Amino acid sequence: MRVLGVDPGLTRCGVGVVEGVAGRQLTMIGVGVVRTPADAELGQRLVAIERGIERWLDEHDPQYVAVERVFSQHNVTTVMGTAQASAVAMLCAARRGLPVALHTPSEVKAAVTGSGRADKAQVGAMVTRLLRLDAPPRPADAADALALAICHIWRGPAVNRLQQAHDEARRARPLARKVTR
Amino acid sequence: MRVLGVDPGLTRCGVGVVEGVAGRQLTMIGVGVVRTPADAELGQRLVAIERGIERWLDEHDPQYVAVERVFSQHNVTTVMGTAQASAVAMLCAARRGLPVALHTPSEVKAAVTGSGRADKAQVGAMVTRLLRLDAPPRPADAADALALAICHIWRGPAVNRLQQAHDEARRARPLARKVTR
Repeated sequence: MRVLGVDPGLTRCGVGVVEGVAGRQLTMIGVGVVRTPADAELGQRLVAIERGIERWLDEHDPQYVAVERVFSQHNVTTVMGTAQASAVAMLCAARRGLPVALHTPSEVKAAVTGSGRADKAQVGAMVTRLLRLDAPPRPADAADALALAICHIWRGPAVNRLQQAHDEARRARPLARKVTR
Repeated sequence: MRVLGVDPGLTRCGVGVVEGVAGRQLTMIGVGVVRTPADAELGQRLVAIERGIERWLDEHDPQYVAVERVFSQHNVTTVMGTAQASAVAMLCAARRGLPVALHTPSEVKAAVTGSGRADKAQVGAMVTRLLRLDAPPRPADAADALALAICHIWRGPAVNRLQQAHDEARRARPLARKVTR
């Protein structure tokens, strides 16, 4: 399975594509960051994120999209932007009929490091090891996006089978409309 | 000027179109609600909101879109969905190059009732009077969307001139891409 992980943010939206199955060596297909200028209008920033996510979906053709679940308990000054960026990522995926999974930060940390309270450096080190990279991906948002994709692959065949069933049901009656350029 | 007001929400997204200028009689062009089923997946709900907003933009061709500014201080269980729905509305507008304005609930209440702490009934009564309707629009989300549009028209020529300048600059270098169906 090929998964696009998205660590949502208005200024930096981490994106990472991982291929593999649980219990086997994983492969990184791509990693990067979609950036938008902090001085642009909010609507224009959301348009830029949409374009960036669409480009990653077009180029890497993932079967699943995993997005970090945003909590409103976090820093209130940034959480609204994070929620808005995540909405755009979910919209882009759902419009193509791709199943979208949400994983909490602690689920992701626990999946890749064994501890839900691991720090960024530990997550970066494990992502580097698991994907056999030369160095931790920079910035941390990019490493977090890869960790999300790994978490999604590893969270077990049961969850994935459920999602596939949902997916097939959805494909049978598509709500999706693809953006053309 | 013709303004689409959007009171964002995942379950009910109020939409209302008002035409007029400050200091003159206003006209309601249309009012309604974009609904999404509470049991649908989040991504699919965002796709349904996108479709609904696109339909209102196509049918009523507004020059401005006014969206309620979401605060994270509100009810934390609903604020994330509200932020996500507002992101979709802003994205749809910005993609067409339409200027998006955000107004706080108290700005809207103050604009239509004279008090930033007016209740829903008071806002509904004033919307009914100002637009010469037979009865307050139902549900309240629809009335709130009309109040947003009225607030945007009334917040003064200075704000609007600034927005028009922004708008012209943006149209000169369009970031927008229109969704085709």
